[in-house]
Amino acid sequence: MSSVWLRLGSWVEVAWAIRVMVVRGAPAIAIAGAYGLALAVQEGADRAVASAGLLAARPTAVNLRAVLERLAGLDDEALLTAACAEHALDVANNRALGQAGVALLQDALASRNGVLTICNTGSLATGGHGTALGMVRSALAAGVALHVFALETRPYLQGARLTAHECPEDGIPCTLITDGMAGALLATGQIGACVIGCDRVAQNGDAANKIGSLGLAVLCRHYGVPFFVAMPTDTLDRDCADGDAIPIEERDGDEVRQVQGTPIAPAQVPVWNPAFDVTPAALITAWVTEQGVWRLPFPNG
Amino acid sequence: MSSVWLRLGSWVEVAWAIRVMVVRGAPAIAIAGAYGLALAVQEGADRAVASAGLLAARPTAVNLRAVLERLAGLDDEALLTAACAEHALDVANNRALGQAGVALLQDALASRNGVLTICNTGSLATGGHGTALGMVRSALAAGVALHVFALETRPYLQGARLTAHECPEDGIPCTLITDGMAGALLATGQIGACVIGCDRVAQNGDAANKIGSLGLAVLCRHYGVPFFVAMPTDTLDRDCADGDAIPIEERDGDEVRQVQGTPIAPAQVPVWNPAFDVTPAALITAWVTEQGVWRLPFPNG
Repeated sequence: MSSVWLRLGSWVEVAWAIRVMVVRGAPAIAIAGAYGLALAVQEGADRAVASAGLLAARPTAVNLRAVLERLAGLDDEALLTAACAEHALDVANNRALGQAGVALLQDALASRNGVLTICNTGSLATGGHGTALGMVRSALAAGVALHVFALETRPYLQGARLTAHECPEDGIPCTLITDGMAGALLATGQIGACVIGCDRVAQNGDAANKIGSLGLAVLCRHYGVPFFVAMPTDTLDRDCADGDAIPIEERDGDEVRQVQGTPIAPAQVPVWNPAFDVTPAALITAWVTEQGVWRLPFPNG
Repeated sequence: MSSVWLRLGSWVEVAWAIRVMVVRGAPAIAIAGAYGLALAVQEGADRAVASAGLLAARPTAVNLRAVLERLAGLDDEALLTAACAEHALDVANNRALGQAGVALLQDALASRNGVLTICNTGSLATGGHGTALGMVRSALAAGVALHVFALETRPYLQGARLTAHECPEDGIPCTLITDGMAGALLATGQIGACVIGCDRVAQNGDAANKIGSLGLAVLCRHYGVPFFVAMPTDTLDRDCADGDAIPIEERDGDEVRQVQGTPIAPAQVPVWNPAFDVTPAALITAWVTEQGVWRLPFPNG
């Protein structure tokens, strides 16, 4: 396991990187999209085509749309500066979000210091610091004793490949488990909180996030463990009344039939591979934003 | 993906095959153990050592102990015949168990035909026919319309490698999903029942089974879906008052850090790898045995 840096030289390469999940994590996708649009202008490409092409690369995350809408009104010359500013804003928002969550985690972890998380929501999913993992990072910096339990997050294994890589590098205590172990772990009584990121949140609080999040939320409810959604406000889609209106991307079945290219199941077996699921608001304890901790109903934007 | 046949020539090889999960599934382990003991006698090995060595190969499943106890009183010469009889008895019991479950599945699947299952509980886990998958097979033969959704069952992927292989071969409609997709699938309303096997059941009905089963049971309760445990009565441990007394095997962390030998996580990241979890009786709708459908309290044995 090691890090590989890719240099993307055109907006089409950026869209490709988003589509194949070289860039993933709703905030990171949005920042990459902003840089992609700036690249399109430098290449002399059609700006409208590039914007639409970038937007189509991954359908569920909504942050990219929010950023592209902000960039839409700008002159070509201003795009690169604006993209850099979006990047810096994301980091600042992550830090504010993390700070807003410190007291929540401090309370939740008072008697049980385990924090359950899924997918990757750290500096590899954002401009830096992270959303859910940013809350963890801020809490740790504030002196809250905690231990992260990272779900490996099949099929794409962002937990195993990214979170389990990032945590030890940054001094965050972390144990890796498979997705199916969450129930057994909660039953041990070690877990004080679950924190997840999100790809799109509806007006009523329903939250689309990495497949497996819904199951975690149900388990946390059963075991009386608070379930927090780390939500930069760009992830809130005010055009979406509820979770039913959130489009869920279904990806290629070979992501399930194979692991890193190694076959683990018969090549022809039917597969269902939704990349996200929707956790109903009723299972969510609080939504942590860069503007503070939100409960329902959400503040009017 | 293809089938490979191994010929095991000594009781030590049989114990090895059980320990490394070449032979897995509580009933199949028990049958292999019986043949292993017969082999030990043919080799001129110490019978007590062989019996203890076989018993120690996997600690959670209890069927092996039941079979070895039945064989303990027999003369050396009678062992091979007795092992063959245990094998035949398991198949007969599986068929009776399957038949006992048909009406349950018929009712549960009347309006939603999806059957959720974990691990492998078919002919590759037993002497033949299967336990949970045996119920499915019997129901299908009785004309019940159904569609199996098989959880891949990380870390060892028995669902992907065995169930998703066995179902299409035997004409059982089957879709493969990752473990984390169970919540999203239940939320779609397609699932009418969940059927699992078990490795050891306590007197009070608590059931140890493949890691992930507990989470499934909690999800089924949340979505109002009946949760059935297919339990040959050999799996009932009358010496175990409740699930807390069931030993849970923890296996090597590399099963989580790797998939089929391919690294998916940093080599040094801490891992928790329990092979089983315990589903409390309160989450189980019924226990299906070769003697009929059991509810609590269990009949006195």
